[in-house]
Order: sequence, then C-alpha cells, then structure tokens
Amino acid sequence: MLLNCDLGESFGAWTMGLDREVMPLIDQANIACGFHAGDPLIMQKTLSLAISYGVSLGAHPAYPDLQGFGRRSMAFTPEEVTALVLYQIGALQNIAAAEGGQLSYVKPHGALYNDMMRDFKLLEAVLIAIKKSPLSLALMAMSTADNTKLKQLCAEQKVPLLLEAFADRAYDKQGFIVSRSTPGAVYHQQETIVEQATQLASGQAIQTLEGEDLLLEADTLCVHGDNPESIQAVEAIRAALGAKA
Amino acid sequence: MLLNCDLGESFGAWTMGLDREVMPLIDQANIACGFHAGDPLIMQKTLSLAISYGVSLGAHPAYPDLQGFGRRSMAFTPEEVTALVLYQIGALQNIAAAEGGQLSYVKPHGALYNDMMRDFKLLEAVLIAIKKSPLSLALMAMSTADNTKLKQLCAEQKVPLLLEAFADRAYDKQGFIVSRSTPGAVYHQQETIVEQATQLASGQAIQTLEGEDLLLEADTLCVHGDNPESIQAVEAIRAALGAKA
Amino acid sequence: MLLNCDLGESFGAWTMGLDREVMPLIDQANIACGFHAGDPLIMQKTLSLAISYGVSLGAHPAYPDLQGFGRRSMAFTPEEVTALVLYQIGALQNIAAAEGGQLSYVKPHGALYNDMMRDFKLLEAVLIAIKKSPLSLALMAMSTADNTKLKQLCAEQKVPLLLEAFADRAYDKQGFIVSRSTPGAVYHQQETIVEQATQLASGQAIQTLEGEDLLLEADTLCVHGDNPESIQAVEAIRAALGAKA
Amino acid sequence: MLLNCDLGESFGAWTMGLDREVMPLIDQANIACGFHAGDPLIMQKTLSLAISYGVSLGAHPAYPDLQGFGRRSMAFTPEEVTALVLYQIGALQNIAAAEGGQLSYVKPHGALYNDMMRDFKLLEAVLIAIKKSPLSLALMAMSTADNTKLKQLCAEQKVPLLLEAFADRAYDKQGFIVSRSTPGAVYHQQETIVEQATQLASGQAIQTLEGEDLLLEADTLCVHGDNPESIQAVEAIRAALGAKA
Repeated sequence: MLLNCDLGESFGAWTMGLDREVMPLIDQANIACGFHAGDPLIMQKTLSLAISYGVSLGAHPAYPDLQGFGRRSMAFTPEEVTALVLYQIGALQNIAAAEGGQLSYVKPHGALYNDMMRDFKLLEAVLIAIKKSPLSLALMAMSTADNTKLKQLCAEQKVPLLLEAFADRAYDKQGFIVSRSTPGAVYHQQETIVEQATQLASGQAIQTLEGEDLLLEADTLCVHGDNPESIQAVEAIRAALGAKA
Repeated sequence: MLLNCDLGESFGAWTMGLDREVMPLIDQANIACGFHAGDPLIMQKTLSLAISYGVSLGAHPAYPDLQGFGRRSMAFTPEEVTALVLYQIGALQNIAAAEGGQLSYVKPHGALYNDMMRDFKLLEAVLIAIKKSPLSLALMAMSTADNTKLKQLCAEQKVPLLLEAFADRAYDKQGFIVSRSTPGAVYHQQETIVEQATQLASGQAIQTLEGEDLLLEADTLCVHGDNPESIQAVEAIRAALGAKA
Repeated sequence: MLLNCDLGESFGAWTMGLDREVMPLIDQANIACGFHAGDPLIMQKTLSLAISYGVSLGAHPAYPDLQGFGRRSMAFTPEEVTALVLYQIGALQNIAAAEGGQLSYVKPHGALYNDMMRDFKLLEAVLIAIKKSPLSLALMAMSTADNTKLKQLCAEQKVPLLLEAFADRAYDKQGFIVSRSTPGAVYHQQETIVEQATQLASGQAIQTLEGEDLLLEADTLCVHGDNPESIQAVEAIRAALGAKA
Repeated sequence: MLLNCDLGESFGAWTMGLDREVMPLIDQANIACGFHAGDPLIMQKTLSLAISYGVSLGAHPAYPDLQGFGRRSMAFTPEEVTALVLYQIGALQNIAAAEGGQLSYVKPHGALYNDMMRDFKLLEAVLIAIKKSPLSLALMAMSTADNTKLKQLCAEQKVPLLLEAFADRAYDKQGFIVSRSTPGAVYHQQETIVEQATQLASGQAIQTLEGEDLLLEADTLCVHGDNPESIQAVEAIRAALGAKA
C-alpha cells in the first residue's frame, strides 16, 4: 500500500502545506500545475524536493480557478477537459525533466476529480489526455464498492489505474466518501485513521458510517500534509504499514 | 530564407489573426502558450493546423499578462523567467505531441523578447530553460548589426540560434528596429517590404532609416497574419523568395 | 419598450462587438466589468460612449472566467455571488462616476444569469448585492410565463425589476427560451424578429416554438451588436418600435 | 501620529497576515483590492473587521499580478494606471458601503507605490483616479527629505496628502528607505524601532544608515501584521506613542 499526498499548493507569496515535513513519509506526490495552486517556481521546488526523496511524481491538474482553489465545479466540455489536462501535464513534465525527473501518473484535483468520478464523459476526457501524452502515465482515481466501469474505461484507453482510498474519511455503502457536511464524515482520532489504513492495506473490510462492512480495493492511500496534526497521522500510518519501499 | 509568423493568438471567445490564411504561406509558426494569448483548445487547433501544412512548430512564451497581450515589460528575475519558459514550452509540447507533432524552436514574445535582447541575464535565463528542456530546441532571436554576444551565449548553452529579421520595419545603424513611435518606422508599401525581404534573403545590405547600408544576417523573416493587407504582403514576399521548401 | 445590449466585451488587444454602431440605437448598455470581458480601460471607453449617447448604464457582472467568457457555470455559494456582484458593480460605478455618469441597473451575464434564473438562492444573492450597494439600482432579469416568484423576491429586497425578453429567440410554453442546440431556437429572418419585437412591445401574444400563444411581460428587449447582420436587425426593430425616448 | 498597516492580503484558500491581532492596534487599514491579493469575500471580511474597530479604511490598489504579489514592476501607461486605480477603489468602496463603511484614503501597493514615487507621470495618474472618484479620498505616499514636488502635485489635483514613514527601515540621506538587499536596511531590534517611531512622532531627526541626521515629516507610520514578532513591535510602538484616538 502506497501513500500519496497533494503537494506544491503554495502560490507566489502564499504558503500552504508542510511539504518538507510530509515528503520523506510518502511514496507519491500529487503536484499542483498552476491552475488551482502552484506557479512555475513552486512547481520547480516541489519537483526537486520530491526527486530528492525518490517520491513518484504525479500531475495534479485542476480547473482554472485560483480563487476557488479548484474546488468549485465548472461546466467544462470534455474537449476542454482534455486540452486542459494535456496542458497541465506537459507544463509539469517539462519542469520535471529539467530537474531530472519524470512523471508517472495523473490525479485530477478537487472539483475536476469529483466531476470525473460522477460523469464518465469527463473521465474519458481525462483518459484521452493521458493516453495522448507521450509519457505512459497512470490515472489515480477513487476506489468505490464497484470499480467495474472505471476499470473498463481505463482499459479501453489502455491507461493503467491506481485506485486510491482514504484512511481519514467515513464511507457510505456504495463506497463513496461521505460529504464533509455530514457529522462524522472526517476522522480526527489517530487510532481510527490508522485502523482504517491497516484494514485497507490488508484487504480487510472497513466499517461504513452506518456500520456495515465495506470491501475497498486500494493501491494507495491519500494522506495530508496540511498541518502538524496531519503530519502526525501520516507518521502513524507509515509506522503501521511499514517503511517506504 | 524562411518565413515565421506569430499565431494562435486568439483567446476563448476572442479571435485574432487570419491563421488559416497565413499558415499555407509560412515555414515556422510561433504559437502562443496561454500566457499572453492562446488557451489549451486554441493551442490544440493551431498546432493541428500547422502540422497539416508541414509548418515547423515554435513555442512563443510570454510574461503572464493577458490584458496587456504580453507587451508590457514585467520585472521578472532570471529564475522566474527560466521557470516561466519551461512551463510554457512543456504545455505546448505536450499538446503538440498529442496532435502528432514536435516543437523545434522557441521565440519569446513581446516584452519578454525585447527584455531578453536588452538584458543578457534574461537571455541566459531563456537559454537555460531551452537547454533544460529535453527537446533540443533552437532559440529564435533578433539579428542586429553585431550578433557576437548573442551567438556566444547560445554556444555556451549549446542552443542552436535562428536569427530573425523584419522586412516591414525600418532599422537603425546598430541593426535595431526603429521604435513604432518614430515616423517611417513601419513600412506599408508592398514594394518596399518585398525589396527589403529580397535584400535580406540574398545577403545584400538594406538601407537604414537614415539611409546607411546595413548588413544583417538572417535565417528567417518575421511576417504577419493580422489582416488581409498583411496576408497580401506575405504572398508577395513568398512569390519573391520562392516556394516553401 | 426599451432596447438593451451587452457591450464593452472587448479585452486588452482583443476586440468584440460593434459598440460604436449599436450604441446610437439602444436605450440600455449592459457593460462588462472585467470578469468575463472588459478591462478598466475598455470599461472607461464604453461608459464614455454610452454617456455621450444618453444610454442608461447597466453593470453586467459575471463569474470570473475570461477564457470561458462567463458562459460556463461555476459552483459559487450565494455568499460568493453577493461579494462578486458587489465588487463588479462598484468597480464599474466608480469608473462611470469618473466619466460623469451613474449606473441604473444590474444584469448578470451568461452562466450567472442562467444560474440565477434557475436557483432562487443565487437570485437572492444577486439582489442582496444590489440592495447593499448605495446606488438604488434595478435588476434586469428574464421574463417567463410566470414571473410571480421573481417579482416577490425583488419586492422583498425592495429592488426594482426590469423584465427582459428576446425578439430573436424561440420560446417554449413556460416562457423559457429554447436552447440554442434545438433547431429553430434562434431566429435569423429579420421579419420574424421584428414581428416578435412588435408583439412583445404591444402586449400581444407571441408564438412558441410549438405554435402555442404565449403572453410575456417585457420592459426591455435584448438586442445584439455582434456583427453587421445583428446591427441591421436592431435598426429594423428600432424602426418598428419608434425612436429612442 | 497614526499607524497604518497592509491588510486583507489573504486570497481564496491562502492565508496571510494576522489581521485579527493587528487590527485593534492600528488607525488605518490599507486593504488589498483583488489585484495583488484579496478577493471579494476577503475584502468583505477585512472591511467588516476594520469597521468594527473604528479603523479608517484605505484602498490598497496594485498592478494585476497575483503571482508576484504586486511586487513586480509592470510597464503601465499613465492612462492604464488611472483606470486600474479607479476600478480597484470602486470595487472596495462598494463592498465597504455594503458593510456600512466608507473609504478615506488610497495607498498604492508594492511596485505601483515604488513606481509612482519615482515617476511623477504615474503619481499624477494615481491622483487623477483619486480626484475623479466621487469620494474625496486622500493619497497616502512616502515621505522623503524633500516632499515639495509630491505636495505640489497633490495640491494641483486637490487631493489631500498623508505622508507615511517607516519605523523599522533604515533611511538614506535623501530620505529614501534603503533597499532590503543592503545589510542593516531592516531593523529587527524592538528598541531601535520604537526609538525611530518616537523620533518621527515628536518631530525629531532620525539617524540615516550612514549616521547623519534626517528630518522627516510624517502623518502615519507603516506597521506590519505579518507574524507574532511584528505584532509585538506594533504593540511596543502603540505603547510608546499612546492609545488610539
């Protein structure tokens, strides 16, 4: 089980995230590409840091919405999404190459991620961008109780799939994460988080918010480097799952 | 002698330039990368059009200033310029690759072009971006009476140089183009333009605004696709210089 | 019956719309505020032109989406919409004041207009921005077969309402304009346009796309200054409805 | 002697500055208007906070450069500067009015501030924007050893002038602050800062970096709310100068 984290989300004079603290703990860095966060210099620094720790490099493309941090859904056509993702992958990849690295996957950010999980036309648009890029990248997407359609679309476009799950979020029985507005949706107790991480890593069922068993396939867990508490949670997950490969 | 032209300078709902009319006439397309003009969809369409005519693909990176069309100088550090150029080259290159093409050179746009010709620190910053890109691109830059320093810097970074000259602009004796605010700075007479193009192509001296002889090395002439008159000028230059290779 | 038109939709080096041609023909100018189009200089020129023709000045605020021309819906909260509209009204009003004019109404643009007509929470957010502005502005919104709720919300916020209708668009029986993707949705025949304008102006029923009678209240007709054909249509409507007051 | 501080410099999801901590200590809030920092919601919250503490409201307009935080000089024409400042003043003023407040002055930010102090054409452009705004605002600008020309230009445009000085910056003998790149340019010792504040407030000479006496007129001191240390410095200055009026 790998650990992935959103990184490089500072912008200009504004700082966000404890990138230096979380980088040694993770396997995969989802790096902002300038549309919701990140600017060319920050991308460069984040890539350099990730490369120095041997962390896999992922593009984290988003809708063009700095003010909304890419969290506001925008009514993009599939063609617009394909072009948008191609653009951001390419920008990040060239800076990565200049730093001596190479991208290995794409994880859409925020509203684009959510929209793509709900609308297969948009998912297909993202996959087309990945397939058309000359880099043989994988897609990182959300695992749910039934990944059939997701796997089928990736197979059609011959794009490898990395399924991600969340250790700190409550799930419903369809395997979707419960909206943050619902009480109990986000776990703050470190034991709860580590327990769910361990269950996901060992192929055991987790408990949904309603108390049912849920089996979720997962290749990677999404962790957070926002603040000291989340760094501690990552350390605890790392300790429970074992050292980085 | 090749002909190059700035293209793909529409943005969203706004149209600029007669790209379809000028593309069949030119050898090299300087394509906007989204910072002064161009958006991912327009980049895609412009690249596709250029590829269909066998035109060489060039990145046309700029300062991030849509409102000013990249024509307003901005006080960027060399490090910021390198990162900015890497970003834009990569974005365009990935869309080009998706369309089955490959970039062959970089020509900075507007204020970035002018600033780089005046400040060798910025020129070096552009060259570093080109050298660090894995694409073996050339730099297209302005030829003046003395290209020694420009050639030396390109040689140091092992970046091939394409020298460009202007058929429709008056020069001073240092080989700089005369500012548009000076009367007579821009040639509108088709014969004058074709004559200067022919002189440049055949290695003959051109006449400066003050009437002196000026010898200018040139690999490529910058032509314009803004309006029907400029298209006619390109057709006349093309007719005078001979068919595309 | 007044005529209103979207204006000031150029941006930086890009031109859109025949503002000089349409301004003499209309009563109300919906002026872009920099978020979907327009920049401070273009706002200044457009306001100056409108004032010189005695045209009423309207703010035309939009989602922050230059590339999408404000036509892509964005998931804004009502609080974000209120702040966004306050910002844009204020910016335009101050430039108007500097030019010796004063705003009299607000017409949201594009996706914000459509979203507000579908979601009363967003409509209320726009009305709150208008009420909180110290300018006693009216709201211009789309008339449908049943304007009860729209009128009620405006009355609650004490914001005067200007109902607008379209002479060149087909309606369905609920009084909504038929989507552009439906055949027959947009009228191009000048007689059809003038006939619908005359019916709307005289309080007669218009014919829906399915051929039913539809009575639509209207204070103002939305006309277009995009190209020579649309200018001719405005001239024909103007001729049919009588000279400007 | 008043205390002014740059505030409202967060943007979207990014936080900057300890606005809640510094607001009770200051007299004048220079509030970002969305071009270098601040967005409509943040402007609203900052204005509301300032009003609740009875702090004077100032517009803090900037070049349109979020990534560079308005600190990179841009080659704007005077006409562009006037329009830009009118836009930003108006946007902030309308949100202020909605919150029950009113602006009283304008202090340009960052590179625009520096450029205006060096180029009287740009200073005049700012003054024209202030004069054309219907709000009777003052200009806050940097005091130097010789304020003759600055006062003359303000008088010509009938714009009141607020002269500001810095307690934590070293000055040269012309009364310009020494560039941050020079060793000793920024004072970090609290006693030094309080001493310079007291000298400025009491009309005594301060010591330049070279040790000469310098008399500086000042109506207001620029203080900072960036971090806990700067808050402590403001508390110490406040204690030395006496309570807010």
